[in-house]
Amino acid sequence: MGEFDLIARYFKRPVRRAVLGVGDDCALLQPAAGCLLAISSDMLVQGRHFLADTDPYRLGHKALAVNLSDLAACGAQPLGFTLALALPDVDAAWLEPFSRGLLALADEHDCELVGGDTTRGPLNICITVFGEVPAVGGATQALLRSGARSGDDLYVSGSLGDARLALETLRGQWKLAPALLKRARQRLEQPTPRLALGRSLRGLASAAIDVSDGLLGDLAHVLRASGVGARIEATALRDLLACRGTELDAAVPAQHQRDCVLAGGDDYELAFTAPAERRADVLAAARDSGTPVTRIGQIDDGPGLRVLDAAGAAISGAWAAFDHFS
Amino acid sequence: MGEFDLIARYFKRPVRRAVLGVGDDCALLQPAAGCLLAISSDMLVQGRHFLADTDPYRLGHKALAVNLSDLAACGAQPLGFTLALALPDVDAAWLEPFSRGLLALADEHDCELVGGDTTRGPLNICITVFGEVPAVGGATQALLRSGARSGDDLYVSGSLGDARLALETLRGQWKLAPALLKRARQRLEQPTPRLALGRSLRGLASAAIDVSDGLLGDLAHVLRASGVGARIEATALRDLLACRGTELDAAVPAQHQRDCVLAGGDDYELAFTAPAERRADVLAAARDSGTPVTRIGQIDDGPGLRVLDAAGAAISGAWAAFDHFS
Repeated sequence: MGEFDLIARYFKRPVRRAVLGVGDDCALLQPAAGCLLAISSDMLVQGRHFLADTDPYRLGHKALAVNLSDLAACGAQPLGFTLALALPDVDAAWLEPFSRGLLALADEHDCELVGGDTTRGPLNICITVFGEVPAVGGATQALLRSGARSGDDLYVSGSLGDARLALETLRGQWKLAPALLKRARQRLEQPTPRLALGRSLRGLASAAIDVSDGLLGDLAHVLRASGVGARIEATALRDLLACRGTELDAAVPAQHQRDCVLAGGDDYELAFTAPAERRADVLAAARDSGTPVTRIGQIDDGPGLRVLDAAGAAISGAWAAFDHFS
Repeated sequence: MGEFDLIARYFKRPVRRAVLGVGDDCALLQPAAGCLLAISSDMLVQGRHFLADTDPYRLGHKALAVNLSDLAACGAQPLGFTLALALPDVDAAWLEPFSRGLLALADEHDCELVGGDTTRGPLNICITVFGEVPAVGGATQALLRSGARSGDDLYVSGSLGDARLALETLRGQWKLAPALLKRARQRLEQPTPRLALGRSLRGLASAAIDVSDGLLGDLAHVLRASGVGARIEATALRDLLACRGTELDAAVPAQHQRDCVLAGGDDYELAFTAPAERRADVLAAARDSGTPVTRIGQIDDGPGLRVLDAAGAAISGAWAAFDHFS
C-alpha cells in the first residue's frame, strides 16, 4: 500500500470545520474572531512512552489524549490536529484499530484531523493540536503557569498515580489482582483529557498545568513561573489513586502509593490554583464539567514545594520528576 | 542534560510575534484579522530522508525548509513552527549546529519557534509550520491543487533534479567532479523554500504544489484534483539542472539527467499553472520575488500527463514518483 492509499484508507474523512483538510500542501483553519490559537505538540516513541504490545486502539486514543491534555491546561477548545506517523511497515491489523481509537477521541472532542505526514521508520507518533481560547479586550483568557499567588488553593483533577502503578505491575514490580490492574491500566493506556474542566476554569484558575511528568515536577514549573512556593497536605493525597482500597494496600506499601501519586507521571490530569475565596466557584466548575477535583494544598511564599503530614511536619520520599533526558 | 535544559540552551529564544512561546502547556498565536491559518507537518527520519553523516547545520535548515515549502505552495506567509525531536542521546556537537541551521532559516523567513517536544528515541525530526494567507470576502487566496484549467501554462521554479543526482553520486552510482557534486549537494541538503514566489502568485496562479516527491508524481496530484491533463515539452527541461553543462554531460547520460528532472524528488521547488494570457504577470512575479521560473508545458484535457519531444512525440522514461511506502 502506498503512502496516499494509507492516508485515504485510514485517516482521510470529509472536512467538517476546517476550510481545507487532508490532501493539499497545507490545511487551512479559521479560528473564531477574537480567539487566539493555542498550539501544542507531543511525540510518542515506542519503548519510551508505550510498550511494544500496547493495544493499538488505546494507543491511538492516548497519542491524541496527551496532546488534548495540553489544550485542557490552557482552557482551550480543540479545533484540529495533524498526525505525523513513522511506521516500520504498513500493517492493517495495527493501523485499523489505531486510527479508530485516535478518531473516536477526536470525534468526542470535535477535533478534526486536518493533515500530517506518513513515512517508513522506527514507530513514532507525533501529533500537533490546535485549539482556540478567547481573548477579551486583547487579554488572553488562556490558563497559564505564571499566575499562582501566595494564599491560592492548590487543586488536582481526577486521579493520580494509577498509570505508574500499572506500568510497574506490568514490569513485574508489584502483583495486583487482574481486576485492580485492569482499572489502573485503563488510566495508563486511555487517559482522560480534562477539556471541559479546563474551559470552565477560564477566569477562575490563577494558574494551571497538565500533570504528565509527575505532580511534583510539573508543579515546580508553576511555582517557578509564578515566583511562589507551595505546601501539599499528605492526608489529601490518600484518595487520589483510582485503584485505592484494602486490596491495593495489601499489595503495595502506603509510602510507595504516595510516591506514585506525587511523582508517578503519565496522569494527564490538571493541577491548578485559584484564590481561596473562590472555592465555591471551583466546586461548581468541577460539577458543571463532570470532573472530580481535590484540594491538596496551598500556594505560599516558599521556599519551594513541601509535602506535610497531618502534624505539619515535612515528609520526604523517593519521588523525582520523570525527565525524558535525565 | 535534562529535557528542559536542552530546550533552554538550544531552542528557547525571546518571544517575538507569538502571544506566548516555548515554556507553557501551549503556545498562543494570533493570525492577522481576515487571514486563514495554513498548517503543514513533515517528519524526517534518518536513513530515509537524510544520510547518517549529513551535516547537522544543513539538516536543521532542511528540516524547516521542507515544511516552509508547503507554506510557499499555498502562498502563505510563515508565522511560526513547532519542533518535536527524538534523539538517541544529547550530543552538543550535533545539537548546536542543528539548532543554528534551523533558526537561521527561521529568522530569514520571520518564522518563530513556538513550542514542541524532545524525547529520547531513534533520530526523528517532526516540524509543524503555521502561516497565514488572506481571505478576501470569505474566499481564501491560498494556492490550491484544484484550480488548473485546460489551456493554462505549466511552470516550475528554480532548478530540478540536482538533489537526486547528488544522492546517487554519494551512493556511488555516478562520478562527479568535486565542484559539480558540491553544487548538486547544496540543492540536496539546503533546499530553498520559494516563499516570496508563492506569495506573489496569489490571485495569479490557478494551481500550485511543491515538488517534493518528483515533478511527475506531484503534478499528477494537481491534475487529479483539477480534473485535467497536461503535456510537458522535453526541450524545456534541458536547462533545469543547476549543475548542467558539458562536465555533467560527460558523466551522466542525457536521458538519466531528464529522469532526475522529471522524477528525482527532494527539489522543494514550486510547480504551478496560470492562464496563458497572464504570462507577463508570471514573469513579473518571478522577477519581483527574485526566483527563476521556467514554462515547461501546458494543461489540456488529457488524458493524463505526457512528455513530448521537439516533434511532439511521446517520450517514456524510467521515472516513477517516489512514494515513501511503495
